[in-house]
Amino acid sequence: MAKERLYLFDTTLRDGAQTQGVDFSVEDKTIIAEALDALGIDYVEGGWPGANPGDTAFFAAPPKLKHATFTAFGMTRRPGRSASNDTGLKAVLDAETPAVCLVGKSWDYQVDVALGISNEENIELIASSIEECVRLGREPMYDAEHFFDGYKANPEYALACIKAAYEAGARWVVLCDTNGGTLPHEVSEIVSEVVKHVPGDHVGIHTHNDTENAVASSLAAVLAGARQVQGTLNGLGERCGNANMVSLIPTLLLKEPFKSRFETGVTAEGLKSLKSVSNLLDELLNRAPNRHQAYVGGSAFSHKGGLHVSAVQKDPRTYEHIDPPLVGNHRIIPVSDQSGRSNILAQLSDFGLKIDPKDPKVDRLLEEVKEREFHGYAYDSALASFELMARRRLGQLPEYFDVESFRVQVERRHNAKGELVSVADAVVKVVVDGQRLMSVAEGNGPVNALDTALRKDLGKYSAYIDDMRLADFKVRILNSGTEATTRVMIESTDDSRHRWFTIGVSTNIVDASFAALLDSITYKLLREGAPASK
Amino acid sequence: MAKERLYLFDTTLRDGAQTQGVDFSVEDKTIIAEALDALGIDYVEGGWPGANPGDTAFFAAPPKLKHATFTAFGMTRRPGRSASNDTGLKAVLDAETPAVCLVGKSWDYQVDVALGISNEENIELIASSIEECVRLGREPMYDAEHFFDGYKANPEYALACIKAAYEAGARWVVLCDTNGGTLPHEVSEIVSEVVKHVPGDHVGIHTHNDTENAVASSLAAVLAGARQVQGTLNGLGERCGNANMVSLIPTLLLKEPFKSRFETGVTAEGLKSLKSVSNLLDELLNRAPNRHQAYVGGSAFSHKGGLHVSAVQKDPRTYEHIDPPLVGNHRIIPVSDQSGRSNILAQLSDFGLKIDPKDPKVDRLLEEVKEREFHGYAYDSALASFELMARRRLGQLPEYFDVESFRVQVERRHNAKGELVSVADAVVKVVVDGQRLMSVAEGNGPVNALDTALRKDLGKYSAYIDDMRLADFKVRILNSGTEATTRVMIESTDDSRHRWFTIGVSTNIVDASFAALLDSITYKLLREGAPASK
Repeated sequence: MAKERLYLFDTTLRDGAQTQGVDFSVEDKTIIAEALDALGIDYVEGGWPGANPGDTAFFAAPPKLKHATFTAFGMTRRPGRSASNDTGLKAVLDAETPAVCLVGKSWDYQVDVALGISNEENIELIASSIEECVRLGREPMYDAEHFFDGYKANPEYALACIKAAYEAGARWVVLCDTNGGTLPHEVSEIVSEVVKHVPGDHVGIHTHNDTENAVASSLAAVLAGARQVQGTLNGLGERCGNANMVSLIPTLLLKEPFKSRFETGVTAEGLKSLKSVSNLLDELLNRAPNRHQAYVGGSAFSHKGGLHVSAVQKDPRTYEHIDPPLVGNHRIIPVSDQSGRSNILAQLSDFGLKIDPKDPKVDRLLEEVKEREFHGYAYDSALASFELMARRRLGQLPEYFDVESFRVQVERRHNAKGELVSVADAVVKVVVDGQRLMSVAEGNGPVNALDTALRKDLGKYSAYIDDMRLADFKVRILNSGTEATTRVMIESTDDSRHRWFTIGVSTNIVDASFAALLDSITYKLLREGAPASK
Repeated sequence: MAKERLYLFDTTLRDGAQTQGVDFSVEDKTIIAEALDALGIDYVEGGWPGANPGDTAFFAAPPKLKHATFTAFGMTRRPGRSASNDTGLKAVLDAETPAVCLVGKSWDYQVDVALGISNEENIELIASSIEECVRLGREPMYDAEHFFDGYKANPEYALACIKAAYEAGARWVVLCDTNGGTLPHEVSEIVSEVVKHVPGDHVGIHTHNDTENAVASSLAAVLAGARQVQGTLNGLGERCGNANMVSLIPTLLLKEPFKSRFETGVTAEGLKSLKSVSNLLDELLNRAPNRHQAYVGGSAFSHKGGLHVSAVQKDPRTYEHIDPPLVGNHRIIPVSDQSGRSNILAQLSDFGLKIDPKDPKVDRLLEEVKEREFHGYAYDSALASFELMARRRLGQLPEYFDVESFRVQVERRHNAKGELVSVADAVVKVVVDGQRLMSVAEGNGPVNALDTALRKDLGKYSAYIDDMRLADFKVRILNSGTEATTRVMIESTDDSRHRWFTIGVSTNIVDASFAALLDSITYKLLREGAPASK
């Protein structure tokens, strides 16, 4: 049986750009559009030409897309003027994109309150706007705002609006759940009704995640007959976000009945790039990826409990619903106080460390992990520190420099002008190749001063750590009060965009920070293959 | 028509504790259990007694729950011994919780591969384990691991397993989608079949979010007849998390057909606490809440676009699917000074401060809040600091002591015995009633040393702060790296069990900590009615 074609429409650059705190540059937009194209998305919606200078600039120099249809978003013409004389619509059509998606009303209440025109006039707005796109040779879509609320209030009218668009030549009518309040079972019922009036292969679905059901509602619409699905990368979007394209794609490609019934533009190769496309967006937005994101999250295939680990190693199906490499992801067996031997062995093998599984060192390592986690370490979030500890125990870590002592001071006092100022400075003594090096530095705070002093002169090692930077620094107090144990986590990065996590634990926040800093530098030296100290 | 009772089962403390990077202390568990109880959850699963020292300690001193049934998790007995002689099962039953949830196999393949026993013997394991709970007067539940995969492979056997549990006296049989791979439409079909064999009011649903459908699958199960829903706060859980209880509750209480058909233990008052319960979990985990979380996220009702803002102000239904205060949330209009002003006025009146709503001081306060929040303050989590700032601006805060200067030093060096030791000490100079007081103290770290030195001699104020203690101390870095802005939150408490939260922000962690400490002491003096400095 021939598979039906299912179309994917991405609106990261339009509806996703509505997210609080998101502000794409034109360069960001180009990078994202080209990544979506390579992934195999059918339609890439770029924004609203004429709505703001950024969108206008983006459409003036459109991205080079190989497969995807570049789409401009706009509004149906306003009342009281013809489609060809509407300046807003003209700005959208002037962008000369192959496809155009025009939003309009389908809820009688909105036609009355927001537009203040008759139901008939609204239908005329829709039809004439779509006809104008057809006249100019564009592929038109009608974006039916508030469609589900409209359908619940007045199904005949909501259907009349989308039928008018379809009959005027709209390639797609897109059913939007604008405020995100419609549940999947309602989407299913309503789409089943809609496809009796407009053929399903002309019906699209656009959902929002306000009840955490956007993905499910999209799938329900496809099962009910819709053949275009709209969404955004990582579910970006206003309020709680849009349907998450990154979750939808693997389900549509890998899960029944979708897998057997449908064909999309995403190939198996494209699917393997999914995790990196997802990470790309977070990188452009300068935010940490969601570790728990379906399919592509860093923890999506991580198995913490010892029982789970041995089960998943015997048969991945027990705790893995798909094979992680299909979406560019991989299994993680974190090490923690809930781990067993199998976690440790899996981890050592990931590090490329060879060891006899029966070696008693493995048990000693496991005991040390449990002991240290009891005292506040959390190695599943600080793999670089775990690798250093494991290598040390197995005698596979070169000795680099040694820190003999440090001193850090913070003083708050009035300066000569009578202003209250704070000054932090640190002195660090290290030994490299038998030679003692002493550095002093000021900093914004004690940890920054220590970091700067430590890195100021590491002798022959300085060149290896030139490009490393601290990306994040987190502190957690484990018991209570200022006397409690402090856990410091440091995330580091370098010019090759590698990221690593280290940890320090102490009752003294400065000590804990220093331990994590030391691990971070040592790990970088290890990765760079720096020679041991003489 | 009488509503049917729908039961909510929370597994944040058991399945949620499996999350990579999550490590609850016993105190954390107690706080969460009591918050779930107050919210109106029916069952609070506390963990697995005997599985690790933390869980064992938690069950030894169980939380005080007013409504919720405290539940222990465990495994059905092992092959080859009787239920009363199984040490694992015994450890679970010895916790003496009113309810017990026992996990077991229902997938014939797993019975063979993981247990290596016959299908019949597995059924015997299930039945005898449940009977043992009944014999000891506990409310038993059977947690059918891999139920959906088992049902797809061999429906007769999967059903036989849960029927055996039900007939042995299980109050609930819980259908688990252990690897999270089952889609909502499959859950719907399978649960519809199950309830022909076990009454729906004895059937629970336990889903995972590996396809971003956990909430939808839970709702589908309820529509198909299940009457117990399992989930976790904020969807915490291994891999991609469990069904998000925080998303499920409002949908079940506010949306049709659930609203009219079902009754839960969550009242309208409980629902209003939902956002704060959700935030509490993130606070304990020291992570930023997900702004885009359905219903309770900080952006869930925020409207960025100007068009959306005027539409939502004309008619909230256009972009708000529910009224935000129902779940303890509120609308955010980032550009609107109006909403900000009314927030500030409501807060001042909460503090018992009287002010003319038109007083220009309110606008200046609003501007200062915006300015400070821009620099990293977060007053909604540090109301004591906000009250102090507001009182200062309104001229309603007495002057107490003044800190002239401080100095704090941390040194790590080898001591006389050649051991590496760290020493922290601080000197603080304060002025009380025109008199200068100077104190020095050592501490575990710089903040502890400063705290101790500051409180050592505050002259006439010392007596007022005798009973105050720091309950928690949290640090967050707002930009990136050790040079970034540091936000310190301090939670303080005293003998009358009052708790208050203060905040300090600076590029210097010691400065930020000191500011939060000062606010904490000043707030205590205010509450105690201490006299102003002369």
